[in-house]
Amino acid sequence: MQISSTFDGGNIAVVDASNPSNIQLNINPDSHTDCYQWFYFRITGAKNQPLCLRIENAGGAYVGSWDDYQAVVSSDRENWVRTETSYDNGVLSILHTPICNIAYVAFFAPYTMERHADLIAKTLGTGLADLEVLGQTLEGRSLDLLTVGTPSQDKLIFWVTARQHPGETMAEWWIEGFLERLLDLRDEEAIRLRENSVFYIVPNMNPDGSYRGHLRTNAAGVDLNRAWKAPTLDHSPEVFHTRERMFATKPDFILDVHGVESIKHAFIVGPEGPAGLKNPIAQLTDDYKKELGVANIDFQTLAGFDTDPNEADDTIASNFLGEYFGCLCMTLEMPFKDTTHTPDPKYGWSTARSMKMGRDSVTAMANIIDRLREEQKAWR
Amino acid sequence: MQISSTFDGGNIAVVDASNPSNIQLNINPDSHTDCYQWFYFRITGAKNQPLCLRIENAGGAYVGSWDDYQAVVSSDRENWVRTETSYDNGVLSILHTPICNIAYVAFFAPYTMERHADLIAKTLGTGLADLEVLGQTLEGRSLDLLTVGTPSQDKLIFWVTARQHPGETMAEWWIEGFLERLLDLRDEEAIRLRENSVFYIVPNMNPDGSYRGHLRTNAAGVDLNRAWKAPTLDHSPEVFHTRERMFATKPDFILDVHGVESIKHAFIVGPEGPAGLKNPIAQLTDDYKKELGVANIDFQTLAGFDTDPNEADDTIASNFLGEYFGCLCMTLEMPFKDTTHTPDPKYGWSTARSMKMGRDSVTAMANIIDRLREEQKAWR
Amino acid sequence: MQISSTFDGGNIAVVDASNPSNIQLNINPDSHTDCYQWFYFRITGAKNQPLCLRIENAGGAYVGSWDDYQAVVSSDRENWVRTETSYDNGVLSILHTPICNIAYVAFFAPYTMERHADLIAKTLGTGLADLEVLGQTLEGRSLDLLTVGTPSQDKLIFWVTARQHPGETMAEWWIEGFLERLLDLRDEEAIRLRENSVFYIVPNMNPDGSYRGHLRTNAAGVDLNRAWKAPTLDHSPEVFHTRERMFATKPDFILDVHGVESIKHAFIVGPEGPAGLKNPIAQLTDDYKKELGVANIDFQTLAGFDTDPNEADDTIASNFLGEYFGCLCMTLEMPFKDTTHTPDPKYGWSTARSMKMGRDSVTAMANIIDRLREEQKAWR
Amino acid sequence: MQISSTFDGGNIAVVDASNPSNIQLNINPDSHTDCYQWFYFRITGAKNQPLCLRIENAGGAYVGSWDDYQAVVSSDRENWVRTETSYDNGVLSILHTPICNIAYVAFFAPYTMERHADLIAKTLGTGLADLEVLGQTLEGRSLDLLTVGTPSQDKLIFWVTARQHPGETMAEWWIEGFLERLLDLRDEEAIRLRENSVFYIVPNMNPDGSYRGHLRTNAAGVDLNRAWKAPTLDHSPEVFHTRERMFATKPDFILDVHGVESIKHAFIVGPEGPAGLKNPIAQLTDDYKKELGVANIDFQTLAGFDTDPNEADDTIASNFLGEYFGCLCMTLEMPFKDTTHTPDPKYGWSTARSMKMGRDSVTAMANIIDRLREEQKAWR
Repeated sequence: MQISSTFDGGNIAVVDASNPSNIQLNINPDSHTDCYQWFYFRITGAKNQPLCLRIENAGGAYVGSWDDYQAVVSSDRENWVRTETSYDNGVLSILHTPICNIAYVAFFAPYTMERHADLIAKTLGTGLADLEVLGQTLEGRSLDLLTVGTPSQDKLIFWVTARQHPGETMAEWWIEGFLERLLDLRDEEAIRLRENSVFYIVPNMNPDGSYRGHLRTNAAGVDLNRAWKAPTLDHSPEVFHTRERMFATKPDFILDVHGVESIKHAFIVGPEGPAGLKNPIAQLTDDYKKELGVANIDFQTLAGFDTDPNEADDTIASNFLGEYFGCLCMTLEMPFKDTTHTPDPKYGWSTARSMKMGRDSVTAMANIIDRLREEQKAWR
Repeated sequence: MQISSTFDGGNIAVVDASNPSNIQLNINPDSHTDCYQWFYFRITGAKNQPLCLRIENAGGAYVGSWDDYQAVVSSDRENWVRTETSYDNGVLSILHTPICNIAYVAFFAPYTMERHADLIAKTLGTGLADLEVLGQTLEGRSLDLLTVGTPSQDKLIFWVTARQHPGETMAEWWIEGFLERLLDLRDEEAIRLRENSVFYIVPNMNPDGSYRGHLRTNAAGVDLNRAWKAPTLDHSPEVFHTRERMFATKPDFILDVHGVESIKHAFIVGPEGPAGLKNPIAQLTDDYKKELGVANIDFQTLAGFDTDPNEADDTIASNFLGEYFGCLCMTLEMPFKDTTHTPDPKYGWSTARSMKMGRDSVTAMANIIDRLREEQKAWR
Repeated sequence: MQISSTFDGGNIAVVDASNPSNIQLNINPDSHTDCYQWFYFRITGAKNQPLCLRIENAGGAYVGSWDDYQAVVSSDRENWVRTETSYDNGVLSILHTPICNIAYVAFFAPYTMERHADLIAKTLGTGLADLEVLGQTLEGRSLDLLTVGTPSQDKLIFWVTARQHPGETMAEWWIEGFLERLLDLRDEEAIRLRENSVFYIVPNMNPDGSYRGHLRTNAAGVDLNRAWKAPTLDHSPEVFHTRERMFATKPDFILDVHGVESIKHAFIVGPEGPAGLKNPIAQLTDDYKKELGVANIDFQTLAGFDTDPNEADDTIASNFLGEYFGCLCMTLEMPFKDTTHTPDPKYGWSTARSMKMGRDSVTAMANIIDRLREEQKAWR
Repeated sequence: MQISSTFDGGNIAVVDASNPSNIQLNINPDSHTDCYQWFYFRITGAKNQPLCLRIENAGGAYVGSWDDYQAVVSSDRENWVRTETSYDNGVLSILHTPICNIAYVAFFAPYTMERHADLIAKTLGTGLADLEVLGQTLEGRSLDLLTVGTPSQDKLIFWVTARQHPGETMAEWWIEGFLERLLDLRDEEAIRLRENSVFYIVPNMNPDGSYRGHLRTNAAGVDLNRAWKAPTLDHSPEVFHTRERMFATKPDFILDVHGVESIKHAFIVGPEGPAGLKNPIAQLTDDYKKELGVANIDFQTLAGFDTDPNEADDTIASNFLGEYFGCLCMTLEMPFKDTTHTPDPKYGWSTARSMKMGRDSVTAMANIIDRLREEQKAWR
């Protein structure tokens, strides 16, 4: 039996793999940090062998991450299903008996940089989108910005960013579903949305972390979603360049797409802090959530983060940008595990559901256009 | 503007198409009957033109069919979305503004005979399934039976039949999803199911009606699901041949897959009549429904047909077969419209959901194996 | 063992299928004619059984059709390979041992009306093409015309028609390859061609014959390619409508795509008759052939029909149209068998090669644009 | 305009990209060597801009590499077409005007490690192949060995290795086509081959070099095809492990798949040296070449390397192995450019042709089985 992770997005350190019923593993921390939780590796040569994969440093994960959590496994790299997983005393134990001599195990279905490159190329192939490179990451990767539509006075400006935290791969699956529908030449809501808006979309805010198999940070160990107040070229060029480009536009709608380790719900958070309490933003946030809830059965509005508006962290994208631009500015969270009200025991939260939420978000956005226009003067 | 339906599964009669805002149509009845409700046609040359398509003989449909009903439209023949539809005074009015110069309109997403042929060929391509031709239809089409596995004493016998009513195309979409997963070489539940069972699957009980664009009958106008007590080669060879082949096996589990015009739920009906009330059948039926409900979010057990066990129609497949074989014998109903507890405004009940229910049924079947074995002596 | 052909494009009559080593078959003639040669049928239940399929009325085929001919077989409906075939004394004997319980046998890889419908829908999905319905066939099918580009004074007018003879399915495979590249948003020659031209494309001139499994005629038994001089709505509406639409344009380039039963070459025929001898047409025809020969390894210019310019049949499309319009007007012939200089023993002439010739024709057309423009005044 | 190559298989160094008509580039050498020739990079932001990409260190390439050479470009990462390229005085000048804001440029169509991983997973998905990991590369990647069939006394042993030189990506495209057909459940020659043989296939002998964008060496700078006589774990573990595994079998047929920079032909080289001159090897080599020439129009036997049997390099795989095992042992060379007798101006030698040669090789192998058996005692 061999375990490897030397590939696009891979992450595991093998401590001892000599005993199939006690394979000892560690997750490599994001570089320059103590933060880690993303794992993704390939097991070969274990056909029909019951394996117990023990991640021994799992205690360092976010609180609540492992309750009810089940790791995903795949033999074909496309179809990721849940497998029995338990957490006890700092160790995450993943039980799996591979069907064949190849098995991939991951925290969530991966979204590789190669798939990202395919997504960019395919998106430009529609003829409806264009590409800008915002800048380079610390390791020399391109930070890709997709644009849809040409700005004009009467068009709304939408910004969508995803995967600041690279291990939250569902965010880029969301983008793939979203783009697929947004750029559908023959979808009514998509047509309406394109006719009325310009889109700036960053499908992957953190290419270095994605390739390296990080959970949360870039190559320098910076949590990009804590860097919006004062990004630097040296440590957080991804945020620096994105923010500069945003400043050159007048956003009406900003959505930052994430995954959540602990909570078994898909939900939206508006700006936490004073910006979120102001009208019309509070009302628009509610309107948008309502629209998304109608369009997508997995989305709900009851559960979410417990936040104290007086202690909002203004280094977070949606808080900083909400305050800065005063426009509708939200964070979408999708679960790593599953939803409680629409559970799927075999797949849990999945690539298909992430993509469907992306597609259904086109409906929600199209249905909010008129209200955005009405309130636009509040922030423009 | 032109309307045509001279193709695989097409059905419409144009009364007057001269006025786009009042296009008068009729559905052609199933041959030799007054029964009709399936429509499927192509509109060309109406790009950006608001159309009102009025089906003037819609009053002949099943009671309750049109409440909350929305027709499906497609420009790419793959993606079928709902469009505004209303019913008043015997006329079904479908409003649609085609995005381009091609638009298909249908009662539900079609499943053509050509797609059926592809499905058969692809299924055999897995190397896990084989094909028998049960016999010929009245018009000379083949009645295809797919078999999975080799019978042996210790294997359970599953029969699945679909699309006795050819307009209930969701039944064959279900089959496509079901086969995809049942024959997955690397799916754990599928492997378990294949190791313990033999499958006899008729993906399309009614090829003639399917090609002709019928709702409910074969080429002779016979409702096959009212022909199980006394089928004949002259009028219902489809049932005659299938029944003969069933008699040569000892089924443990029979599932007949259907669509339901009026009810906005997916549900299962066990044998209506004395057979359904007997234990262990009543208990097994409940067990299976529970398993399917866990595996598939769209399935539910609260709503369904109101039936009187004393007035069960023993010409219906699941009633006749339930009584005859005494084994677990059920009818699955999926809605033409949508579900009330998991609604999807854009797609309603869809090909994707039909296929997912087929896939998730593998889980439910795999989870009922042990209980079937325990009770098997009751009917064998 | 069962043989069936009751499907889209199917054609066979079973005389006696009781003896696998002597299965006696006839091809059904095109309706109202003695003409026939297209066959396409499905065999089930003959796994690993050596079959000798004897087409007993094969003597009625075109002279030379069966020399070196090998029928095609497929178990997956996509991949068509050659099988041992011989002709003796009026009987075509096809030897085949099916790998599994499904085997399709055909004269050439079929192109069904359902695939045609998919092609139309997909083509419109590019946003670069539009659809007109030229009229209806005798059996009520739509005669589809695809248009690419908007006419303007400085644009060249290209007409491409295919499959007047419905059994020459390679003609529509050619169209599929041609459209795929012509409408590629990012192909340089395609862009140049689209910028300089308008296209009128009839992918299937004979829908009725295609569905019915004819070799050569429409539902009335008319050979459409002998009907261009005096088509009628009653007997050859396909030509009538197409001609009318052509008359409303000023073609610069007309290509009619065909298959050839006897000759093992792909070649082009210019107008046979006085029109073909005139300059600049004779020169342009040679130029185009040279361009296509460079772009496509299978195309050649040495072999072709032996024709006598003094006895040209002016009811044939390219002869009639060449004379009528005086523009560049050609017939492309692709073999049913194979080519002699680029043989492929496994596949012979194939769908892939037909499509590649379609794609490579974009190069040839793009390279002839300037010369067409120079000479344009000769016919405009 | 930005140029980047920080991705799977990428390689370029930008000297100065400020002037679109004189973009100065260098190819990074394979690590620890002076050897280089593989380039692969992405250009963004140059839509409709005529670019002259000058590779200034092109003079270090193999002699004859650039005569008639044209680089490949792609905007969709799938379709690679040739673009005008010239070589003068040590500089390779690639002219390209990108159609859109994304353009990839490469020495030949890339085959990434991610695609390799997909290939492995898909191959195992057929249920006909298995995976062994031969060992680890210097950088910790897995060296994958695919096996097809179970060894038994009466089965022939085939070994196929590819891509010792990682920049010769056509070798792995060949493998993809080869596997696709070898594992086709319903292909007659493939069935015959599988029934009579066991296959050991190394799709990629050089994963580290592939990821790094090397032309010829592994991470330590070793040319693996000069390391067969004395491989070491420290410098050439890829060869070391493969050789060990070969030693544990008794090969009857060894094929090593390569690309050739200078020669415009596809050809086969038998063992250069005494082994190649012995009968029956010399005869079998000729037989195999003849079979492949019949099956594949691009293959030929006239042109190839000029070799002196007295100066054969016995560190080369096919020379060493031919001598060691005494069995049929060959090197297949496919061109980087095109073939002279079957040229394709748009694509040149391509992924499609590489894959087709892989598929057609199944025919050649199936047709050589009997002769291999006859002569087998010579080396067993």
